[in-house]
Amino acid sequence: MGEKSLYKFRVEPQEVDFTLRATLASLGSAILNTAGQDAYGKGFGVDVLNAENHSWVLSRMAIEIDRRPEQYTDYAIATWISDYGRVLSTRNFTLTDAAGHEFGRAVTQWAMIDLTSRTAVDLSWVGREHDDAVVPVPPPTEKPRKIRTVTPSRSVEHRVVYSDIDFNRHVNTMRYIEMMLDMLPLDLLTQEAPVRLDIHFLKECRFGQTLTVGCEERGQSALFEISGDGTTAAVRAQVEWRHE
Amino acid sequence: MGEKSLYKFRVEPQEVDFTLRATLASLGSAILNTAGQDAYGKGFGVDVLNAENHSWVLSRMAIEIDRRPEQYTDYAIATWISDYGRVLSTRNFTLTDAAGHEFGRAVTQWAMIDLTSRTAVDLSWVGREHDDAVVPVPPPTEKPRKIRTVTPSRSVEHRVVYSDIDFNRHVNTMRYIEMMLDMLPLDLLTQEAPVRLDIHFLKECRFGQTLTVGCEERGQSALFEISGDGTTAAVRAQVEWRHE
Repeated sequence: MGEKSLYKFRVEPQEVDFTLRATLASLGSAILNTAGQDAYGKGFGVDVLNAENHSWVLSRMAIEIDRRPEQYTDYAIATWISDYGRVLSTRNFTLTDAAGHEFGRAVTQWAMIDLTSRTAVDLSWVGREHDDAVVPVPPPTEKPRKIRTVTPSRSVEHRVVYSDIDFNRHVNTMRYIEMMLDMLPLDLLTQEAPVRLDIHFLKECRFGQTLTVGCEERGQSALFEISGDGTTAAVRAQVEWRHE
Repeated sequence: MGEKSLYKFRVEPQEVDFTLRATLASLGSAILNTAGQDAYGKGFGVDVLNAENHSWVLSRMAIEIDRRPEQYTDYAIATWISDYGRVLSTRNFTLTDAAGHEFGRAVTQWAMIDLTSRTAVDLSWVGREHDDAVVPVPPPTEKPRKIRTVTPSRSVEHRVVYSDIDFNRHVNTMRYIEMMLDMLPLDLLTQEAPVRLDIHFLKECRFGQTLTVGCEERGQSALFEISGDGTTAAVRAQVEWRHE
């Protein structure tokens, strides 16, 4: 049995929008950064996995942000793995401000892939070998939702360029989030309401592909579907603002 | 008289490309972040200036990177202001690895603007009031070059969206750098040769504008010109790789 790990952050000027509060994409990036650091520190990071021709791949993510922290604000992200299945491991996060109040949380589900076949491999060995990394605390909110259908009312095209891709030559998660949110009106993005983002990765998008980013507005929500080179969906997502 | 300030960084996974070394844009972002932190810590940051309806605006920047540091590598950025003129102040940077070897340097020139008229104001008072922030050490390399003419052989269009803009609602510097570099072939961007980037800001680009990003290849260099809504140049830049 392990303990939650705590990582400290500060909202830097390049992470805020003109309301001087951290963007949803930058908080998402900090969350994923925490996941990478924690796995790396515990000996099952991408560095170790790559030596075995394996890698972690994010399958689904849910992020809830109740209020976006202001520029130069200190905050902390606690992270823990609650369970390992054969195909998916669940890593959880809570975000707390300097006074210790929780202002956000996230649940992520990761698969392990073979880098040659790019298919999922059984990851139960990680749970056995790194049993001390599992913390018996349930996820802090509902697990990421599967998003089954999106019927876009409008779409934009985006050619995948150098600055979009990660160490795997695939579009990085933060850039997917930005592409989707960029389709929404500024007043929706900069409002103060609590927000939940569910994102579901089905296929990888690569350098040079032309992506179609479709958006459907449905009540308090916006739904998105991204596909590469005119094929089936690679990413689906839903953003929902909760007005109390 | 003051002393150089030192800020510590580590190359995070979201800052590397598939060569697992920090991108030029992410190093540029760390450099600008250092400038903001140092001005903030010394009492002449954007927070204080905004209260007077003023702000800092980056006018020109030169960055030289001899070798790009690898993922999870620690490095430090030292920064100091070498002089204040009436219109421009010069802030300098050196980047050193954990062993203390310099692997990069930058020179930036900043104007102070009135936020209402958006014109430059006399900033010599900063030099007088914050004399202790000036360090009598000359810039570590040639000051940013003025780039006078660019004759693009190809261009792309880019609509300015939410994720492009900063706290001032203008396109942020890192995004300009990305837009330009994204026009170049991957093998040029990921080679190991020392690189120098000069960037020269003439006008601000705003949310909703459609930018034209033009590129001219000239020997070992690539030159760029960005203009908004078909008007005159807003940004010009030159990237030069030095093969020894």
